[in-house]
Amino acid sequence: MSAPSTLIDVARMAGVSPSTVSRILNGTAKVSDDKRIAVQAAIEKMNFAPNQMAQGLKKGRSMTIGIVVQDISSPFFDETLRGVDDSLKGTGFASVIVSGHWNAEEEVQRIRLLLARKVDGIILLSGRISDEDILRFAGTRPIVSTGRELHTASALGFKLDNENGAYLAVRHLIDLGHRRIAFVTGPANNNDAAERMAGYARALAEAGIEVNMNLVAEGDFHEAGGMQALNRLFETNQQFTAVFAANDLSAYGARLCMYRKGIRVPDDISLIGFDDLPGSEYTTPPLTTVRQPLYDMGRIATQALLRLIDGGTVTDQIPPVELVVRETTRRVR
Amino acid sequence: MSAPSTLIDVARMAGVSPSTVSRILNGTAKVSDDKRIAVQAAIEKMNFAPNQMAQGLKKGRSMTIGIVVQDISSPFFDETLRGVDDSLKGTGFASVIVSGHWNAEEEVQRIRLLLARKVDGIILLSGRISDEDILRFAGTRPIVSTGRELHTASALGFKLDNENGAYLAVRHLIDLGHRRIAFVTGPANNNDAAERMAGYARALAEAGIEVNMNLVAEGDFHEAGGMQALNRLFETNQQFTAVFAANDLSAYGARLCMYRKGIRVPDDISLIGFDDLPGSEYTTPPLTTVRQPLYDMGRIATQALLRLIDGGTVTDQIPPVELVVRETTRRVR
Repeated sequence: MSAPSTLIDVARMAGVSPSTVSRILNGTAKVSDDKRIAVQAAIEKMNFAPNQMAQGLKKGRSMTIGIVVQDISSPFFDETLRGVDDSLKGTGFASVIVSGHWNAEEEVQRIRLLLARKVDGIILLSGRISDEDILRFAGTRPIVSTGRELHTASALGFKLDNENGAYLAVRHLIDLGHRRIAFVTGPANNNDAAERMAGYARALAEAGIEVNMNLVAEGDFHEAGGMQALNRLFETNQQFTAVFAANDLSAYGARLCMYRKGIRVPDDISLIGFDDLPGSEYTTPPLTTVRQPLYDMGRIATQALLRLIDGGTVTDQIPPVELVVRETTRRVR
Repeated sequence: MSAPSTLIDVARMAGVSPSTVSRILNGTAKVSDDKRIAVQAAIEKMNFAPNQMAQGLKKGRSMTIGIVVQDISSPFFDETLRGVDDSLKGTGFASVIVSGHWNAEEEVQRIRLLLARKVDGIILLSGRISDEDILRFAGTRPIVSTGRELHTASALGFKLDNENGAYLAVRHLIDLGHRRIAFVTGPANNNDAAERMAGYARALAEAGIEVNMNLVAEGDFHEAGGMQALNRLFETNQQFTAVFAANDLSAYGARLCMYRKGIRVPDDISLIGFDDLPGSEYTTPPLTTVRQPLYDMGRIATQALLRLIDGGTVTDQIPPVELVVRETTRRVR
């Protein structure tokens, strides 16, 4: 991953000395045409965006960025990683993906590991590490994080407006005449979850509806938790005409809970999620939800990081959340 | 990523010379207790499975394995990556994930890129690169691939029995009395898809049912293709009582197609998929499918690669496919 070994690889393939490769890449010294052609052929054969990569290596870069996800197997991170992947195309940069497993201490360890492996910068997708720790690490290499607000020369944060997303979801239900709206929350210690709770409360307050904690059940941002949370509300005989699930996976679980009980969605109860995962277009019925710009977050975070690595500044913003009305919500009967 | 820079990092943190760190890691020369404690504390603080990593670095390893997936955003790869991720825990190895995008040429480029970055070995998850190319690359570093059979000292393949999986799915439908069984295939140029077609044909032949190509529609292993394929069968007024979809994503699309037409699953038409993605437990109704040991494939491929890197031999097998009966299949009326 270091510059010398790459030069050595190219040199070996071209049958010239590493210093010849170096001089050709620098473009500063005279080299015979034969050698130049052989080196260029070798670079092309090794095929890793040679110009960008060569320039990066000249600057002492590893041409690798580190990505810390929280759960490699969650569809939530898939779309964002696709945005990262697409944005790295043709840049000469490769990515090293590691998982923090939603554990602040493990995230710190993983970031240390990435820095020890000489990545040129880090993208942190969500996570529980403190802003202070991020700023400290950003002293070594630029860091771009989603899910928080940071604005220094080497640390940037792109934060989604969770509160407003939840507000839009619940206002949509209120606009359809719903007043008894159950809420399947995210996990108790999760920031995003707390902000979505705040949006739920604001939409209700605006409509003059009191928050009834009997209609709020804790989920875990996964299907099983969503199913269990809704089950608890039914078991305690709560009356409601709509459910806001704090993310789409929870909504899938809530949907199955209602299917099991013979409750029709949306005829008997409306359901709305949050995220707009790719699968939400294909649930039966397709899920009304709040769209997070997951792909764009990956794309914008990557472009921002590459600019920070180049010593530039970033003014990009992520697109706002938006309501996507499909077929799980309808006017209250 | 190279040994010296890691030693330098540890040395800097411990306030000793790199050669002192090296001697402590080797365990061959005498060093004062103070220094030993400082170095051990630094190694622990940097926290990357220091013993395994130090030993690997001594052997000239980068302690990095490369993983080539085909689509970073597909849930199909998520479970396998989770198996890889879990198996790397505590080994000192990190993974570099790159995407081949189902393109043989791009896979070749990505493998070259990984080798140029000095990975110690490569896991190739599916893909279209030829066995010959893999064997050639395996001359440089060990390669473990899923989706093919390879048995050399540096190249191993773990292949799923697609034919038998499809056979089990279709025989399940036949056992339930179905005889007009539609098949939503995978893409035409895909090996797995061809093998699943063979299993479909075998199960029908065994039951004395002729393959009726009017009941076979080409999908693309994604939801949209599954929906469109089934739509085409309905538009040409084919009569069938069950659908075998060549993978779960296609089955989700087929399910939505039937929902749109008011066809009840399984009351009117039975549906069976292939893969058992995590989401298939939460479709409505939960999907009957053929379980691929996705997580175990990731786990076993990783363990096998680490053993090949160590110069060992591998005798592991992946578990067989199995039928998972949930709620989308029922006896024909």
